[in-house]
Amino acid sequence: MADPDSNTAAVLYGINDLRVHQWELPKELAAGHVRVQMSNVGICGSDVHYLQHGRIGDFVVDAPMVIGHESSGVVAAVGPGVTRLAVGDRVALEPGAPCWHCKAAREGRYNLDPDIQFFATPPVHGSLASFVDHPAELCYKLPASVTLEEGAMCEPLSVGVHACRRAQVQPGKSVAVLGAGPIGLVVLMCAQAFGADQVVITDVRQSCLNFAAQHYAATTLLTTPQQTPSDLAQQLQHTLAAAAAGADPTPAAATAAGVPDIVIDCVGVQQTLEAAVRAVAPGGKIVLVGMGSDQLQLPATLLTCKEVDLLGSFRYCNTYPLCISLIASKRVHVAPMITHRFPFSAAGVAEGFDTAARAAQTGAIKVMFDLQQQQQQQQEEEEEVREQ
Amino acid sequence: MADPDSNTAAVLYGINDLRVHQWELPKELAAGHVRVQMSNVGICGSDVHYLQHGRIGDFVVDAPMVIGHESSGVVAAVGPGVTRLAVGDRVALEPGAPCWHCKAAREGRYNLDPDIQFFATPPVHGSLASFVDHPAELCYKLPASVTLEEGAMCEPLSVGVHACRRAQVQPGKSVAVLGAGPIGLVVLMCAQAFGADQVVITDVRQSCLNFAAQHYAATTLLTTPQQTPSDLAQQLQHTLAAAAAGADPTPAAATAAGVPDIVIDCVGVQQTLEAAVRAVAPGGKIVLVGMGSDQLQLPATLLTCKEVDLLGSFRYCNTYPLCISLIASKRVHVAPMITHRFPFSAAGVAEGFDTAARAAQTGAIKVMFDLQQQQQQQQEEEEEVREQ
Amino acid sequence: MADPDSNTAAVLYGINDLRVHQWELPKELAAGHVRVQMSNVGICGSDVHYLQHGRIGDFVVDAPMVIGHESSGVVAAVGPGVTRLAVGDRVALEPGAPCWHCKAAREGRYNLDPDIQFFATPPVHGSLASFVDHPAELCYKLPASVTLEEGAMCEPLSVGVHACRRAQVQPGKSVAVLGAGPIGLVVLMCAQAFGADQVVITDVRQSCLNFAAQHYAATTLLTTPQQTPSDLAQQLQHTLAAAAAGADPTPAAATAAGVPDIVIDCVGVQQTLEAAVRAVAPGGKIVLVGMGSDQLQLPATLLTCKEVDLLGSFRYCNTYPLCISLIASKRVHVAPMITHRFPFSAAGVAEGFDTAARAAQTGAIKVMFDLQQQQQQQQEEEEEVREQ
Amino acid sequence: MADPDSNTAAVLYGINDLRVHQWELPKELAAGHVRVQMSNVGICGSDVHYLQHGRIGDFVVDAPMVIGHESSGVVAAVGPGVTRLAVGDRVALEPGAPCWHCKAAREGRYNLDPDIQFFATPPVHGSLASFVDHPAELCYKLPASVTLEEGAMCEPLSVGVHACRRAQVQPGKSVAVLGAGPIGLVVLMCAQAFGADQVVITDVRQSCLNFAAQHYAATTLLTTPQQTPSDLAQQLQHTLAAAAAGADPTPAAATAAGVPDIVIDCVGVQQTLEAAVRAVAPGGKIVLVGMGSDQLQLPATLLTCKEVDLLGSFRYCNTYPLCISLIASKRVHVAPMITHRFPFSAAGVAEGFDTAARAAQTGAIKVMFDLQQQQQQQQEEEEEVREQ
Repeated sequence: MADPDSNTAAVLYGINDLRVHQWELPKELAAGHVRVQMSNVGICGSDVHYLQHGRIGDFVVDAPMVIGHESSGVVAAVGPGVTRLAVGDRVALEPGAPCWHCKAAREGRYNLDPDIQFFATPPVHGSLASFVDHPAELCYKLPASVTLEEGAMCEPLSVGVHACRRAQVQPGKSVAVLGAGPIGLVVLMCAQAFGADQVVITDVRQSCLNFAAQHYAATTLLTTPQQTPSDLAQQLQHTLAAAAAGADPTPAAATAAGVPDIVIDCVGVQQTLEAAVRAVAPGGKIVLVGMGSDQLQLPATLLTCKEVDLLGSFRYCNTYPLCISLIASKRVHVAPMITHRFPFSAAGVAEGFDTAARAAQTGAIKVMFDLQQQQQQQQEEEEEVREQ
Repeated sequence: MADPDSNTAAVLYGINDLRVHQWELPKELAAGHVRVQMSNVGICGSDVHYLQHGRIGDFVVDAPMVIGHESSGVVAAVGPGVTRLAVGDRVALEPGAPCWHCKAAREGRYNLDPDIQFFATPPVHGSLASFVDHPAELCYKLPASVTLEEGAMCEPLSVGVHACRRAQVQPGKSVAVLGAGPIGLVVLMCAQAFGADQVVITDVRQSCLNFAAQHYAATTLLTTPQQTPSDLAQQLQHTLAAAAAGADPTPAAATAAGVPDIVIDCVGVQQTLEAAVRAVAPGGKIVLVGMGSDQLQLPATLLTCKEVDLLGSFRYCNTYPLCISLIASKRVHVAPMITHRFPFSAAGVAEGFDTAARAAQTGAIKVMFDLQQQQQQQQEEEEEVREQ
Repeated sequence: MADPDSNTAAVLYGINDLRVHQWELPKELAAGHVRVQMSNVGICGSDVHYLQHGRIGDFVVDAPMVIGHESSGVVAAVGPGVTRLAVGDRVALEPGAPCWHCKAAREGRYNLDPDIQFFATPPVHGSLASFVDHPAELCYKLPASVTLEEGAMCEPLSVGVHACRRAQVQPGKSVAVLGAGPIGLVVLMCAQAFGADQVVITDVRQSCLNFAAQHYAATTLLTTPQQTPSDLAQQLQHTLAAAAAGADPTPAAATAAGVPDIVIDCVGVQQTLEAAVRAVAPGGKIVLVGMGSDQLQLPATLLTCKEVDLLGSFRYCNTYPLCISLIASKRVHVAPMITHRFPFSAAGVAEGFDTAARAAQTGAIKVMFDLQQQQQQQQEEEEEVREQ
Repeated sequence: MADPDSNTAAVLYGINDLRVHQWELPKELAAGHVRVQMSNVGICGSDVHYLQHGRIGDFVVDAPMVIGHESSGVVAAVGPGVTRLAVGDRVALEPGAPCWHCKAAREGRYNLDPDIQFFATPPVHGSLASFVDHPAELCYKLPASVTLEEGAMCEPLSVGVHACRRAQVQPGKSVAVLGAGPIGLVVLMCAQAFGADQVVITDVRQSCLNFAAQHYAATTLLTTPQQTPSDLAQQLQHTLAAAAAGADPTPAAATAAGVPDIVIDCVGVQQTLEAAVRAVAPGGKIVLVGMGSDQLQLPATLLTCKEVDLLGSFRYCNTYPLCISLIASKRVHVAPMITHRFPFSAAGVAEGFDTAARAAQTGAIKVMFDLQQQQQQQQEEEEEVREQ
């Protein structure tokens, strides 16, 4: 097994300056923590954004920071007081450590803890490293039926679960998902798992829609950046109506079915938000997940007269056990989303981030680092040495 | 087409006195109503109860009453002001007509209207007849993909939908359904459609469990009337734990998964209610649907200390469009439940009710009358006459 | 008593063309309706808007329309089938008549019925007339402790109740009400009645704030149209903190108390909406009631990261019984809001609308027509005639 | 100031064996904890029950245990890492310390943590002692406007807040509170603070009702242990109707108002629970707080047909800041409930518990120990000694 004393990490030093090198672990594993030998870490859009811009909003990388937050691994050591995990347990790591007893956390919304310590959000270090120390209560044991790679996918999947919970997706509701990037896709599969009557997913990229249709049997709508929000809203309703008509080819049913009860905006630009308000049913819900633009023009009177609920959705809470259950029971399939895999080495990290950054060219949906591969190689080499 | 002037109905005159004979329709179809030529009517346990006992609680059959309330048919005429339905439309009939503007209805719970007019609840006539007049807003058009027989099944299915809504069944919740009769079965399939993580269903009859396992891939638990509530509660938890362990064979996960978040009691006897309170998770929900006994011993302190929600569930509201959608999209399958079919004739009605009443011997789950069969026969005969 | 055969109404013919003249009532009172001799009708901002602009959004006055919708009166006749009201009953009239069985109404949100018939919303006639026919279920009997004038105030008060319900105002929540016009004031008094910990109300007009402070003991904040949303947000928090500190002069408590859990925007302009998003607590709620601008710039990323709920609030449903109870029990005081009273005559109507339109100069908060006054005069004159 | 080295505690050794003697504090104050010099501790019914029976259900006093859990004091020392509290802060102590990251706590219901450490629930020591070490996040600073005695009352008041939250008490709801002991009284005042339309409180003791009427202007109903549940239900409805009629003397309003939307059972015996189910409105809520009997006969069919929610309410969570705010703003008045005060000495403790145990004779509602009194005496004596 790899030696914690020779821990390696991918460290972001500034714009386009990501280095892989030795990284010192704390001398002692803190009480209530476990030391995890990482097996898989995925690249999120926010990781690429930090690499390219050195910041997201007020969060600025002004000191070297380990990157990565979609991750899984194997418990290598347990700190004092840890009873529910043991060395060798395969775990998914929830990246945000709240204080647990701020007002938000006490009320069940620990994702809103203003002091939450979240992997790879400056100044907190991330998880793209050989070893990571993490609170035991944020490491979730994986059953044999869930791979470590799938375990790392619990992080993006959590975003989909949380958005669907915010929207109260359930049987009887029709749902429009705007945007078919990685977040749109997890929202899509969660909306299906939560029992929505109809789900339509949109994107300006036909390739993304093809992927959604092929792997998740989704009804799709190709949009263009040029079309007006009203036009997009109308096309959404037509597409949903046609999808419903497949099951119910009566004009009345089709018309009613065409008006989405729920719109989940995973893009967050002017066109999508305005289309959402125009398309959604009176009394319906819009969940805003995508952060395409900081400022958006809102059709306020329309929102008021239709009594729309416009709900922000930020990260997630209480999602990991459900994500593992959804994957284990095959109610969702996250594996197809992993389109590219790279080893954890200087070259691998560089190539992985490049592949993720140029997704339009590479067709990457989820880029995943495989830290076991390196470990196995190292292990084999070490065993050879020992045998000699 | 059969002549509304020669309308036939199955009329309950008293205990074990059910007659099929001519039944006069109103001379004029009222404003906002449609006249439906009935195609399918199922037998519910309450129908059998009225036949055998002449009453249910305070509802007494003290004048001849048409029986039947699980029904579908084809619109034969539309009354003044009806615009959303046309002659020839295939429809499912929601049996309860509320006033729509009592306090309960205004707040979205029209099933609690104290003056609701519900088919075959004395003194309101039911729907086992050639023709029935009904408010247009309670007749729901069926798409081509839903058979009229399935349309009639929207009624029992609605009970399942309503119970699952009351329980807020959703992904992340494990559910125990107590009782595998017709209501237990629709609750089971709805709990699955609402995305529950695990569902276990219990019964004292192995045949019912076999049916649930075969048609709905359910996890089952055979119980005995003799076992203590504590023992039943424990077995419920073990069964759920084992089912969860299929997906997640870690002891910790299995233990947690074994405690149901939701118990839906479709029996309603002392054993089931007490087992529900003992088995359910702290903060969990019990929905009481079955009315096995009027008075039940409640472990009150346990309910209080676990902060259980014990929720009555009575009939349903706002369920028909969803039921049609669930059937059309094949998220639920109601057709297998229809084990016996009878024509609508004096002999057929007698045999049908006998088959339903002796379900333990006949293995009947749902007995369905086919009124089209008779109509087709009549129609063919009439056409022959005309051709001559 | 005034003669229904000589009914008079205030009829809007076009921009600035409001005439008071004879207005024919239906020959027969429809089933389920009552004929109400009107006693009080208030002027709402929307009435003034129709008078000045001939339209609100897509609602255009293109045929003569009786104006007015905040109203009360005395039952003069009851139509067939009306059992719960009798001649002589004093009633408040809820102005919107829904179909009661559309999807929205069935789910308890009848204010969202797309076909609702609402007084003085083209082409539906309003209630500023001697007599009005109205569905009995929308006429609410007033107890002796509530004056007819207060009964007419149930309409604006309903807007406040509905907004507070949408916001889930309750003990433990601090509330900021933006705007101290008539709607801001009813929201303020409802927020107090719903048990909010702290309520602050803002306006650009010192006179409105003085009124709120004097009659409702409100904490107030004078704003200027020029200040930035950030500045307004900060001042809101400081004002709330200081108010909380009155009860709790510890810095920590004051800081926490300064962040409103709920902001109810009764203005609906750029400054207020943006300030609301900036000021509100993470996980908090903003209710949008005011329709100052059709399009508003939304700090979308901030809304998402704080997981704010932005909720439109449109008219109301299920509010009248509560409004009557609130007034009768003196939990709210609407009478002080009635600053001006006018008789129902050509001159009185002209003067009343002029007073309402020039509220900035006249200091009018609520202008109320007193139709009894005229009736009493008429009655006295008639009696004199009879006596002679 | 009293010396932590000479800490004194009231220690329960077994049935009727309560001793006041020296009690050793931990040598070091743990990280995140504060040491509080206690000023006030009230006696709860559970304290008396432990004294008289040595157990409550499965919780058995099988080792000496410090008693008491309704408490306030002054911070005497702060442990490592505590930043939000300082020596000299006046605080109320929330008695239950959850782990904060079990499933229940993460979902906002930390009162359901199965491993919660709750003062004076065996084997956890309570707070009737000169000094107590407690997690800082469970010590809430009191503003100058709240006395330390009132601070100790936050504990029983919390039970009322939690029950009213479970019941969703709000304007528009009428409430019946069954039982006018200390818990019934705090539920009553909370129901009023949450804005209920009408609140009626019942008891078999006229003296308790007199207290409720005198101090909280409550509508009261004297009941007898002999009357049937149906009779009690009917009287409840009559009393509420009459109370409503004060505001609204129309028969229709009175009848509707007489049916409670919410019943909060603070007794928990057969008569009260059954009366609750019979009296409550269809679709209404019953909250079970009192634990009079472990097993209660439930009118199950009635509960089902009326779709009642029967909700257990256990202790509380997220209540302390609201309790302090309610007291500080004078929305509730807890001080009148404190009918008896005793010093913290062997004699005082004996007399205090005796007074509480014989409440029927002594008229005690809340018995409060004043630990400051003793401290002041000691302090004065010490100062005298020093001065000499």
